[in-house]
Amino acid sequence: MHLIAFGDRLAKAVQTRGNPVCVGLDPRLDQLPPGIRVDRSSPLEIQAKAFEKFCLEVIDATHWLVPVVKPQSAFFEELGPFGVLALGRICNYASAKGLIVIMDAKRNDIGTTATAYAKAYLGTNGQSAWGTDALTVSPYLGSDTLQPFVDQCNATCAGIFVLVKTSNPGSGFIQDLSIDSINSQTIAQRVADYVQSQSLLSATSETGYGCVGAVVGATYPEQLQAMRERMPNAWILIPGYGAQGGSASDVVHGMDANGLGAIVNSSRGIIFAYENPKYQSASNWQSAVENATLDMIEAIKTASGNRVT
Amino acid sequence: MHLIAFGDRLAKAVQTRGNPVCVGLDPRLDQLPPGIRVDRSSPLEIQAKAFEKFCLEVIDATHWLVPVVKPQSAFFEELGPFGVLALGRICNYASAKGLIVIMDAKRNDIGTTATAYAKAYLGTNGQSAWGTDALTVSPYLGSDTLQPFVDQCNATCAGIFVLVKTSNPGSGFIQDLSIDSINSQTIAQRVADYVQSQSLLSATSETGYGCVGAVVGATYPEQLQAMRERMPNAWILIPGYGAQGGSASDVVHGMDANGLGAIVNSSRGIIFAYENPKYQSASNWQSAVENATLDMIEAIKTASGNRVT
Repeated sequence: MHLIAFGDRLAKAVQTRGNPVCVGLDPRLDQLPPGIRVDRSSPLEIQAKAFEKFCLEVIDATHWLVPVVKPQSAFFEELGPFGVLALGRICNYASAKGLIVIMDAKRNDIGTTATAYAKAYLGTNGQSAWGTDALTVSPYLGSDTLQPFVDQCNATCAGIFVLVKTSNPGSGFIQDLSIDSINSQTIAQRVADYVQSQSLLSATSETGYGCVGAVVGATYPEQLQAMRERMPNAWILIPGYGAQGGSASDVVHGMDANGLGAIVNSSRGIIFAYENPKYQSASNWQSAVENATLDMIEAIKTASGNRVT
Repeated sequence: MHLIAFGDRLAKAVQTRGNPVCVGLDPRLDQLPPGIRVDRSSPLEIQAKAFEKFCLEVIDATHWLVPVVKPQSAFFEELGPFGVLALGRICNYASAKGLIVIMDAKRNDIGTTATAYAKAYLGTNGQSAWGTDALTVSPYLGSDTLQPFVDQCNATCAGIFVLVKTSNPGSGFIQDLSIDSINSQTIAQRVADYVQSQSLLSATSETGYGCVGAVVGATYPEQLQAMRERMPNAWILIPGYGAQGGSASDVVHGMDANGLGAIVNSSRGIIFAYENPKYQSASNWQSAVENATLDMIEAIKTASGNRVT
């Protein structure tokens, strides 16, 4: 089996769909549509089944529109082992539908423990237990702990997205601090430089993008623009669109001139669109999901001057 | 049901056993004892069953000696959903044996996603899906993302251990950097100050320890000593003993005058003791586990001048 390197695979997927939208699969029991929602007092197995049914239907409604989905592991782990089983089936289903699957789990650990996480999630087609294309990874433990993930990406044509600047209000607690010894560079910049160096090493001549990406929130658009310039060979996964406040004009700062280099995630704004008055005329919640996805695609296309071709 | 706050519960467990040893459950297929080991080409379900059998036997061999076990989630996730099911059963078994269970998963995320992780792992007796007593947590995303964990700890008498200074060679990549704006404080010190402030808020009058602890590696004994002084109300979980190079005299720096305040983890040195020539006269691998545990307990007791009473 000949696999295509992650950076190129992602570029091809974005170009095929003509947009960089990622649907975030963040099921929350209280927001599931009536008909799927179950009571919070239900056994965890029943709650997990509701999550699974919901996510599979979201995938059905969006897989022909977008290149990527990003399940959020936390919501499944909250339901214990039953939730994690459902997560596994959802990942398989998304892959079978041709979607690129980014496991959002923000994993890391030291030494061979990092290798275990890498082997868990990095690699499609039986190359890893979960069969997912990419994983979000935390850098706090140090660059030596990121290396096993990079090695696995190179071996299996998978990708990682290292947390650089996250979208939450308090992300500056560590990420924005400037370092005495490195010319007042911030922590986020230091991590970004590592990401860029590793992406450059794995960048292909076809697209110039490597397998090591970064997470940079839409909620800090100036930093997003600066990070795009600082990491020219790295894909950026951009959370924070929509519900968290990031706009289409904000996320365009993460794109290159060809409309590549950025994957823009929306979770609540798409999957719970049925709650939004704007979509309440939709015939059912699945149509609301579809309409919200189409609106997000259109907004990003317009803001970027139809850059993706 | 009247629950005891985590800081006090941990103190009581350490005092009951007379030592602060934590057995790390880090199964690795290639190191499982003959008789339990299965081939790497076996189906993941079979590999997961081998992990489960192994860990349950390690618990059987050690639960009467030590106060705490710490399953490493990565090795179970590596086997996919089957591995995670085994992990869930192992946690339940350890709790039923009276052990305090620290899930070593180094989780975190933003906002309500952090809440989902907190609800997944923090709380025994049906208060969380996994039923574990404590969780390791990463601070990179910011102190606002740690707060949901602290809140859950206070609600369920659970605990967290925030990564402060990890035991790996490259941990200085972020943790040792000193910050321009905060009087050359390091990142690790900044995180430690957060931990201390939160532990102080939740400290009980009985032991003075709160529910928010820190991870500080045995491999940096000077920092361990400084961190003990910096966080007088925080439990410190100390990895890096044994296989990683930390010694009994190193870990003593994490203890207070009464032998409390530190939990010392050993994984490989205990669970794969049968590979160590020192324990090859043991009648079986379980006896090697028991002997290695007893030796570690004795080494720490001696180095600390029998401080735990």
